Amino acid sequence: MKALVYEGPGKKGLREVEKPEIIKDSDAIVRLVKTTICGTDLHILSGDVPAVKEGTILGHEGVGIVEEVGSGVKNFKPGDKVIISCITSCGSCHYCKQSLYAHCEDGGWILGHLINGTQAEYVRIPHADNSLYHIPKGISDQAAVLISDILPTGFEIGVLNGQVKPGDTVAIIGAGPIGMSALITSQFYSPGKIIMVDLDDNRLEASKKFGATDTVNSQNAESAIQQILELTDGRGVDVAIEAAGFPATFDICQKILAPGGHLANVGVHGKPVELELQNLWIQNVTITTGLVSTSSTPMLLKTLSSGKIKVEELVTHAFKFENILDAYDTFQNASKEKALKVIIDFE
Amino acid sequence: MKALVYEGPGKKGLREVEKPEIIKDSDAIVRLVKTTICGTDLHILSGDVPAVKEGTILGHEGVGIVEEVGSGVKNFKPGDKVIISCITSCGSCHYCKQSLYAHCEDGGWILGHLINGTQAEYVRIPHADNSLYHIPKGISDQAAVLISDILPTGFEIGVLNGQVKPGDTVAIIGAGPIGMSALITSQFYSPGKIIMVDLDDNRLEASKKFGATDTVNSQNAESAIQQILELTDGRGVDVAIEAAGFPATFDICQKILAPGGHLANVGVHGKPVELELQNLWIQNVTITTGLVSTSSTPMLLKTLSSGKIKVEELVTHAFKFENILDAYDTFQNASKEKALKVIIDFE
Amino acid sequence: MKALVYEGPGKKGLREVEKPEIIKDSDAIVRLVKTTICGTDLHILSGDVPAVKEGTILGHEGVGIVEEVGSGVKNFKPGDKVIISCITSCGSCHYCKQSLYAHCEDGGWILGHLINGTQAEYVRIPHADNSLYHIPKGISDQAAVLISDILPTGFEIGVLNGQVKPGDTVAIIGAGPIGMSALITSQFYSPGKIIMVDLDDNRLEASKKFGATDTVNSQNAESAIQQILELTDGRGVDVAIEAAGFPATFDICQKILAPGGHLANVGVHGKPVELELQNLWIQNVTITTGLVSTSSTPMLLKTLSSGKIKVEELVTHAFKFENILDAYDTFQNASKEKALKVIIDFE
Amino acid sequence: MKALVYEGPGKKGLREVEKPEIIKDSDAIVRLVKTTICGTDLHILSGDVPAVKEGTILGHEGVGIVEEVGSGVKNFKPGDKVIISCITSCGSCHYCKQSLYAHCEDGGWILGHLINGTQAEYVRIPHADNSLYHIPKGISDQAAVLISDILPTGFEIGVLNGQVKPGDTVAIIGAGPIGMSALITSQFYSPGKIIMVDLDDNRLEASKKFGATDTVNSQNAESAIQQILELTDGRGVDVAIEAAGFPATFDICQKILAPGGHLANVGVHGKPVELELQNLWIQNVTITTGLVSTSSTPMLLKTLSSGKIKVEELVTHAFKFENILDAYDTFQNASKEKALKVIIDFE
Repeated sequence: MKALVYEGPGKKGLREVEKPEIIKDSDAIVRLVKTTICGTDLHILSGDVPAVKEGTILGHEGVGIVEEVGSGVKNFKPGDKVIISCITSCGSCHYCKQSLYAHCEDGGWILGHLINGTQAEYVRIPHADNSLYHIPKGISDQAAVLISDILPTGFEIGVLNGQVKPGDTVAIIGAGPIGMSALITSQFYSPGKIIMVDLDDNRLEASKKFGATDTVNSQNAESAIQQILELTDGRGVDVAIEAAGFPATFDICQKILAPGGHLANVGVHGKPVELELQNLWIQNVTITTGLVSTSSTPMLLKTLSSGKIKVEELVTHAFKFENILDAYDTFQNASKEKALKVIIDFE
Repeated sequence: MKALVYEGPGKKGLREVEKPEIIKDSDAIVRLVKTTICGTDLHILSGDVPAVKEGTILGHEGVGIVEEVGSGVKNFKPGDKVIISCITSCGSCHYCKQSLYAHCEDGGWILGHLINGTQAEYVRIPHADNSLYHIPKGISDQAAVLISDILPTGFEIGVLNGQVKPGDTVAIIGAGPIGMSALITSQFYSPGKIIMVDLDDNRLEASKKFGATDTVNSQNAESAIQQILELTDGRGVDVAIEAAGFPATFDICQKILAPGGHLANVGVHGKPVELELQNLWIQNVTITTGLVSTSSTPMLLKTLSSGKIKVEELVTHAFKFENILDAYDTFQNASKEKALKVIIDFE
Repeated sequence: MKALVYEGPGKKGLREVEKPEIIKDSDAIVRLVKTTICGTDLHILSGDVPAVKEGTILGHEGVGIVEEVGSGVKNFKPGDKVIISCITSCGSCHYCKQSLYAHCEDGGWILGHLINGTQAEYVRIPHADNSLYHIPKGISDQAAVLISDILPTGFEIGVLNGQVKPGDTVAIIGAGPIGMSALITSQFYSPGKIIMVDLDDNRLEASKKFGATDTVNSQNAESAIQQILELTDGRGVDVAIEAAGFPATFDICQKILAPGGHLANVGVHGKPVELELQNLWIQNVTITTGLVSTSSTPMLLKTLSSGKIKVEELVTHAFKFENILDAYDTFQNASKEKALKVIIDFE
Repeated sequence: MKALVYEGPGKKGLREVEKPEIIKDSDAIVRLVKTTICGTDLHILSGDVPAVKEGTILGHEGVGIVEEVGSGVKNFKPGDKVIISCITSCGSCHYCKQSLYAHCEDGGWILGHLINGTQAEYVRIPHADNSLYHIPKGISDQAAVLISDILPTGFEIGVLNGQVKPGDTVAIIGAGPIGMSALITSQFYSPGKIIMVDLDDNRLEASKKFGATDTVNSQNAESAIQQILELTDGRGVDVAIEAAGFPATFDICQKILAPGGHLANVGVHGKPVELELQNLWIQNVTITTGLVSTSSTPMLLKTLSSGKIKVEELVTHAFKFENILDAYDTFQNASKEKALKVIIDFE
């Protein structure tokens, strides 16, 4: 079969490789219908994630058809259309019993990281009963593939950790796919104001159609902070969601919080940040971090199915799998290409 | 009357000053029976808290007898024995309606800070109905004065923010009065293990009688971190309570957290800390800060009254008010004097 | 001034009475702009609430202009436009400190019940600082008067107690003003399905414009239960909100709950109900009751102000104060008159 | 092998039956070391649980040694000493994903109910990875067998559902094994007062050594209610735990609740109760029911292991397996025999 293979820092190729096989009774083999590229895939290609060995197939998102299941799989059978969760969970370890699947002792984020991933015609999914999801009626493949990672990540790590409540003022720093996912899913809780913050005016403009009530360009951080404070009558925001992953964006978050406010970090950080405890110690703030557990997937499926949220417009580009290298080019130049999510079709 | 007056950085004096009077209908005048000295008073004397003007009477803790009340005070009358909360709250502003009294728009921490405090024969308490508490039967004055600040601070900002649960492993960094308060009140939730961490072996030894199950000296931070991790089979602690206020102690906390763990900062910090987001972004941790709201005071009174906790031993020294300058000397040399809380008696 | 006075079971009259005066420092006198009639007023008139003494002015909802304040009132001044909360709270008693204002030891529901109410040209409001609310820009008087009681009641006792979550299936039994308020405010949490249940097809039809996704007529209770179960694939609803107050409507609720479901009783009941513990003991259900505390009022004002919810259409009829007896007639024949909320104008 | 077999209402026998075998890959076969008898077993024998077919082996509690595991079992191997949970859970269905294992779609309470149970030399445990627990060091077999059912039931359905908080007043109605388990585990949260209520003075006396601060005999229900109210200064209890299962005991609970109080029903009920909604609708109470999910088992093991709770004294009698019919006799005459838990030894 064909697969997009990581070949060391800066190198990747669309190669012919062996089709995966069932190894354990709890495995399933899934034939991909759609996959997509994540910012994390670019991090891996930059060499930032040394745990990824050369030869690994990239990708941790996807929709597909179950091709084969191990004898221990009871919830899925060949022919089922499924969403592949970016998180693999055994369902019975110390962390899974707390619904903290992100830290599953025999899973977690392993697809396209520690084992072969979804940017391939077929993928092997360990612990299939806990790591795949049936697709309810009325959800398009395009929407479904966003459930693999970005919607639960924006929701669980941004919105739930940030404890967004009705009437709140929320600021989201970073208007990429994850920030937009937080923007869309924060509306489950009816905040009064959602302020989108980014360096790119195109993305800010786009955020309005996903529900942003205000936008602030942060080219000048000082001025951005000032504008955000003014939008809250000087009180600060109830929730700041960091969806970019830089010291500068984290810094904006810590400077715009109201007393009692929440800072939910979603961004992937490569270096430490300076936490201004000399100001914050007295402010009764809560700062959270996290890798998604995808424990919200059943709920997200219900809200998608009932039409509560519209997510298809997060997909700005589509490519056939044979052109996945072009898809990478587009995604790597997201700002210029006005790209959010780039979808790869296998059919 | 006599009062301990702040006279600028490094200077204080026991002076004759005017007795306070009712200014607003909601005020009460309280005659002090006991007060105490807080680490914050030392910060003020070092000149670290410029908001404190020369001439201010220090102190924000105390037990006393109500002398006089304004016409709007309905819960207290002259002769009532009361605890003075370190936090003044109006009960009706934006923050008070969220029980975040620490940030009361007409109160918060003002005693011995923005208005005259409790290290005096008499003190004026604004918003008396919300800022004083009756003392139930069976609570000694000595225990009661610890309810003004340190017990609710250790409990709300350490234990509640840290979300201590039955069976948890808790580490408390700093075995001073606040750390000991967190140690005592964490036991409300029956953690399985409480590891006390400090530089001072005397304090570590003392912590055992308040319920520490393990102690670690952190003279060598690396080794301390190693020992704590070993005590948790390498998994890390569920809750780390920072009760010291230094970058080095915060750093220990962030390095000993289990995935999903809580870091509750109680310490007063004078400078930023380096937050290792490059490691923590994926760890699903929660970091909290805060000034106490004393919303737990009614509950603390009930648990003291029912004998659930023993706190008198937190008091290591007692002085008459006329010798308050000696009391300051002792408290400023806490380690050498083996001092925890130093009580000042007016009778 | 003129006021609607309760004159014993079945009797009421629009009478000339003395204008109220400030009694305590914390009182305010409010000149009414709008008031409305509540189902509870009808209960009082039926003689069901013996605590109400003859001669009491009815009414516990209203919007008005502050006329005069006691010397202890600090948040309001003459000329302020305010919402009068149906709940009076002192802000400092045992219950107020837990935000359970409904049970305030010097307040609770007293207006038009234990003291004179709002169906009059002027009303005295005790504990004004905690019992009145400023009206933010962009909220009409008509919407504001719904914040006195029905919106917080539907929200706190129906939606919050019922713990409505994104994607949930919610059934609301009773499509009167309170049921409709629960319907509107449940949407703060984005349930997937909201099933409205009533005997009156007009009200069911009306519920669709407030967001009901399904409606069921319960003339035949058996069949209604069956239809609701079918709408949930036989699993039962996540949340059942009882907004009618009869054994029969409570019974529907207890028969449609999914395992783990919530039954939030909002209705005012005059007699016991039979609770089917022989079935429910094993079902992990939660049943709640309550009088509103109006602790959600600040949040409701923010969501109204930001346009998150539209409530004006809950008002179906308006009368001048001089015609308040006609207003009562209309409200008492709500089904025939297709009435929801009936507003009384003083200007 | 030998097993205690249900032979229809009123009939049981110790019979020679076939040893169980692995049926599915996820099964384990466990050789029993200890088991015990539950009140539910008596209900089955009375014919109250028609789902139990004649020929079924009774029992859902036990400690044993793993004899054999299916190929899909990864957490256990032959020779492991284990606790058998009374609840079987697949770990991946709709309810398991919400940690509501009690309602597992391929499990729940099935042992000694829908499939053969633990009052036998060997038992087959489906979904072994999620339904067995390793026994940490320092926990005796006698304590471990109490973790199968009664400790998590008292804790989850009584204490957690009842939301016991530090300083609370808790009343527990029923001082049998489940009530005692609630009594012991409520102390995880440091209530100020725990009032034990029962008809049997011996049990009330025994409850004192497990931590009851007050006891009330309820032979005269009116007077019992009065005594409980007096113990709370007339306010009522914060939490009432129903651990008996009768209309009369439920009725005591609903009459002693403070405003805002919680009524946690743990008892198994055979008929409806009269719920006094005409009084309770305004009282802001919460009533919960439930079958245990045993999701607290890992926590309970930690607290037992750290010595936080002492449970061995719940065991009042022990019998060899060959004398299990005598054990039933003793347990059926619990009051006369002063029996709490009756243990059956296989070795």
